[in-house]
Amino acid sequence: MDQLLRVQNFTVSSDGVAAGEGQSLERPFGHDVDPGQLFFWAGATASWPNRTEPGGSRGLDDYFARDFSHNIGAEIMGRNKFGPQRGPWNDHEWRGWWGDEPPFRTPVFVLTHHERPSFTLSDTTFHFVDGEPADVLAQARKAAQGKDVRLGGGVSTVREFLDADLVDTLHVVVAPVELGTGLRLWDSPEELTDRFHLEVVPSPSGVTHHLFWRK
Amino acid sequence: MDQLLRVQNFTVSSDGVAAGEGQSLERPFGHDVDPGQLFFWAGATASWPNRTEPGGSRGLDDYFARDFSHNIGAEIMGRNKFGPQRGPWNDHEWRGWWGDEPPFRTPVFVLTHHERPSFTLSDTTFHFVDGEPADVLAQARKAAQGKDVRLGGGVSTVREFLDADLVDTLHVVVAPVELGTGLRLWDSPEELTDRFHLEVVPSPSGVTHHLFWRK
Repeated sequence: MDQLLRVQNFTVSSDGVAAGEGQSLERPFGHDVDPGQLFFWAGATASWPNRTEPGGSRGLDDYFARDFSHNIGAEIMGRNKFGPQRGPWNDHEWRGWWGDEPPFRTPVFVLTHHERPSFTLSDTTFHFVDGEPADVLAQARKAAQGKDVRLGGGVSTVREFLDADLVDTLHVVVAPVELGTGLRLWDSPEELTDRFHLEVVPSPSGVTHHLFWRK
Repeated sequence: MDQLLRVQNFTVSSDGVAAGEGQSLERPFGHDVDPGQLFFWAGATASWPNRTEPGGSRGLDDYFARDFSHNIGAEIMGRNKFGPQRGPWNDHEWRGWWGDEPPFRTPVFVLTHHERPSFTLSDTTFHFVDGEPADVLAQARKAAQGKDVRLGGGVSTVREFLDADLVDTLHVVVAPVELGTGLRLWDSPEELTDRFHLEVVPSPSGVTHHLFWRK
């Protein structure tokens, strides 16, 4: 089997915005975006990795939520998904937004131009890598040991790998909220249909799942 | 986490028929039902376990197809899903419809009133068990080592476990074909909504996914 590069559960507003501007330690999605506006659909499912109480839905959205880890052997993420710092890593004590038990449970390759030693939190090891998308993907594929690689975002990272034509499948969730300004994945999902098949699946929760795979 | 008992990818006609009558070695779904009328949706996906060539869709139907094995540690099936024989097992040489590499890759518990020794084909071990549904489920849960148990069918077996109120989730696919006569899961999916939440999700392939989970 091929090792796919997959975007999963990536959520944008109805106008294609994935995050606001002005990211900070307190506001990972920017000063004017509440992540709950986008990710409510996932938080309501039984399989949401951060769920601490029993319960949750087991309908359509749950299939997407639980596919998050299925056959994934590594993740690639942009630096801004790891933390709000810019420039050299001055503080090695702060080890990312993801807590002591990050939900990835695989090697994670964080894109950065600045060196930093790898470290492990629970089942997740963060590596800090510089390089072209194709080179980073080759590293992640090797670490994934035959499994697929998740392209975790943020939006700039997804666009960079799309521009390099390295993405095999995308699952993009469009939430019923208009954000207006911010970091945009697309003006319209149709922008990708020259290279990808597209299925559009409305969920009872109010979001619309967009499933893309290579033609 | 609980160990769920899950029905997955179970496909019926628009009038609720899962199999025809007159099952034989040559016609596992009965003399008047071509399995392609029901299962075309799964065969078209990239993740169909019996796929021998590359390709296949990676849209909505593929999420369901690939969830088949996800977090499943054992299967329970009725005798008629294993083979067309009735009564005592006279021929131990014939080892079921599933070939040398059955797609289950877990312990499988085959319901039968007639003893037969367990055997292994590739990653799948078939056990032949008699007993009440709750007792068989307890055996399967133990074998599943913390993972969920798939209730594989056929239709009589699904109904038997529903009657015993042992099923936690069901994914039932309704195919756009009317069969008229045969072994019926339901007259209408609404029959289950007293005990289960229901989401109905149409697929571009023409089938409609029905997702049930306990209230």
